[in-house]
Amino acid sequence: MKKVVVIGGGTGNFTVLSGLKHFDLDISAIVSMADDGGSTGILRDDLGVLPPGDVRQCLVALSNSSRLMRSLMSYRFENGDLGGHNFGNLLLSALEKVTGSFEKAVEEVSKILYIKGKVIPVTTHQVRLKMVLNDQKVLEGEKEIYLSEMIDRGYQKIYLEPDPLVNPKAISEILNADLVVIGPGGLHTSLIPNLLIEGVSDAIKKSHAKKVFIVNLMNRKGQTTGFKVSNYLEEMVRYLGEDCFDYILVNNQNPSDDLIHAYSQEGELVENDLNDHRVVLAHLLGEVKEQSKNDLIKRSLIRHDSKKIAQELMKIVNYL
Amino acid sequence: MKKVVVIGGGTGNFTVLSGLKHFDLDISAIVSMADDGGSTGILRDDLGVLPPGDVRQCLVALSNSSRLMRSLMSYRFENGDLGGHNFGNLLLSALEKVTGSFEKAVEEVSKILYIKGKVIPVTTHQVRLKMVLNDQKVLEGEKEIYLSEMIDRGYQKIYLEPDPLVNPKAISEILNADLVVIGPGGLHTSLIPNLLIEGVSDAIKKSHAKKVFIVNLMNRKGQTTGFKVSNYLEEMVRYLGEDCFDYILVNNQNPSDDLIHAYSQEGELVENDLNDHRVVLAHLLGEVKEQSKNDLIKRSLIRHDSKKIAQELMKIVNYL
Repeated sequence: MKKVVVIGGGTGNFTVLSGLKHFDLDISAIVSMADDGGSTGILRDDLGVLPPGDVRQCLVALSNSSRLMRSLMSYRFENGDLGGHNFGNLLLSALEKVTGSFEKAVEEVSKILYIKGKVIPVTTHQVRLKMVLNDQKVLEGEKEIYLSEMIDRGYQKIYLEPDPLVNPKAISEILNADLVVIGPGGLHTSLIPNLLIEGVSDAIKKSHAKKVFIVNLMNRKGQTTGFKVSNYLEEMVRYLGEDCFDYILVNNQNPSDDLIHAYSQEGELVENDLNDHRVVLAHLLGEVKEQSKNDLIKRSLIRHDSKKIAQELMKIVNYL
Repeated sequence: MKKVVVIGGGTGNFTVLSGLKHFDLDISAIVSMADDGGSTGILRDDLGVLPPGDVRQCLVALSNSSRLMRSLMSYRFENGDLGGHNFGNLLLSALEKVTGSFEKAVEEVSKILYIKGKVIPVTTHQVRLKMVLNDQKVLEGEKEIYLSEMIDRGYQKIYLEPDPLVNPKAISEILNADLVVIGPGGLHTSLIPNLLIEGVSDAIKKSHAKKVFIVNLMNRKGQTTGFKVSNYLEEMVRYLGEDCFDYILVNNQNPSDDLIHAYSQEGELVENDLNDHRVVLAHLLGEVKEQSKNDLIKRSLIRHDSKKIAQELMKIVNYL
C-alpha cells in the first residue's frame, strides 16, 4: 500500500484528506500547530492547551464514523459562554488535560472516530507564528497574520517563537512516504509554519517520495494579491529549495463570472504562468449548490473538489 | 435476569448504580430533570437544552468503558469561559443540539460509554422545580431550594413548572421492574422531583416490584435538620402513600467522632427511630482514605459505599 503524507493545516488539508480517504492508501496528515484564532485561540489562552482546530479538521476528514459523530465534532455552540467554541476542539482539549498529552488526546479521538491513517501534529510544543514586515512592523500570531492586508508588500521574516522541536514522528512519516502533498491552504498561515520547524524541510528534500504542490485557487487580498502560480512556487522554494516538487497541481477550470464577481472584494483567481513539465492542469473546482449561492461566506464558494483532487493524486500514485 | 429500576438523581444514584453494575441485572436509572445549578444551569439558560448533569452521572456509573473515558466524562474545565463546565455535560448538550433530541443524545453517549442498562430521563420537557415555604416565600429552581436553609421549617408545596408529561419509558420500566430503588439523595431536589410527575407515583404503587427506600446518612442543615428515619419516610408517604416500601435500608455503622465533628457545621447523622419489619440495618459506610481527610469537601467523607449498598440490594434480589 502506498504511503501518502499530506502536510498543511486548515480546510485545505480537510479537502485533500476527505478525498484520499476513499482509496486504498496509508495516509498521514502532518498538521501545523500555529493556529491561534477563534475557538482554538481561546482554548490556548485559557487552558494552556495545544491548538486543536486544525488537527480536529484532519481527524474529521479521515473519520469513518457515523455522520452524527462527524457532525458532533464540527458542531459549534451558538450562545453564552460557549458561543463560538467547537465541540471537537473541546474534546481534544479536555482529553489533553485528562491524559496530560496532546498526542495521546489525538490518538484517543482517532479511535473514537475510527479514522483511517494518522494525524500527526508537526510539533508538540507551544509556538506562536510571527512575521516581520518590510516596514519592520511585527505581526504577532497566526490570526493577526491571517487578517493582515499588508503582507503582499513583502515581509522580511516569518518564524515560530520559541523555536520548537519537531515531532520525530512527522520526520519518519515524511522519510518513509511514497508521495508528499503540500497544499492547498493559507500560504503563510497553514503551509509555511510546517516548513519553519527544523528538520521538516530537510526531510522533505531527503525523502525519496514524489512531491506534489497543490496551488490555491484564489489569491487573498493583501496577502497574495496578484500572485500567479510562479509566485506561490517561489515562496515554497524559499523553504524547500529549487526543484523540490515533482508535480505542481493547478486548476484550469473557470468558475462562473457570477462567482468571480461575488469574490472580487476578497481576491482573484490564481493564474498559471508556468510552462513547465511539472505542471499538471486539471479541472479541480467543487460544484456550487444553488442554495449556497446566497451564503455569506463567499470564500467557500470557489473551492477545490475533494474527489477531483484525489483522482489527480491517484493518477500520480498509480504511476509510482 | 431481574430488572432493577433506580429512581433519583445526583450522586446518590451514582453510588447505587456503580455498585449494581457488577451484578447480573437488567438495570434502569430513572433520572430527575429538575437540576438547574452549576454547569447544568448555565447550559440550560444559554443553550435551552435539557439538564445533562444527573443523566451524565448515571451514564458514567453504568459505563463499562475505559477509565480514561470515564475521567473525560467527569472532567471539569478550570479556567476562562469554560471554567466550571463539565465535559460530559457539554457532550450531552452538543449531541442534543446536533440530533435535536435529548433522548437520542443519551442513547448515543450510552453507546460511546458502553453502558450496562438504560438511563431514562423522567421527562423530556423543560421544567423548573419550585417550592412554597410556610411563610409564602417561593424558592425558584432546584439550586435555590438546594441552598436554602429554611426548608426544615416546613413547606406548603413543591411542584414542577410547567407540569410536565412523563416519559412513557419511565412508566413502563417501573411497571416491569422486579425491584424499585429510591434514594439515597437530596430529598427535595433529587428524589421528590421524580414523584411530582403525573404517573410516576401511581406506577410505583401499581408495580409488582418490591420497593426499597435507601435512607440518607446525614441530614443537611436547614433542609432536614433533626430528621430521623421516620421523617424521611413521612416525606415519601406524602407522594407514595402508606406502606409503599417493602424495605427501608438504613445504615447502622458509626463514622469516627473526628468525621462527625468535621461535618457538624453541615448536618448530623440520621438516627433510626423505626422499629419495623421493613427496616434493614446494615453497615453501609464508605471507607475514608487517609489523604482525603483534609479534603475541603467534607460532605463527601461520610458517604455510602457502593459495594455495600449493592450487596444489601442483591440479598433482596436473590430473595425475589
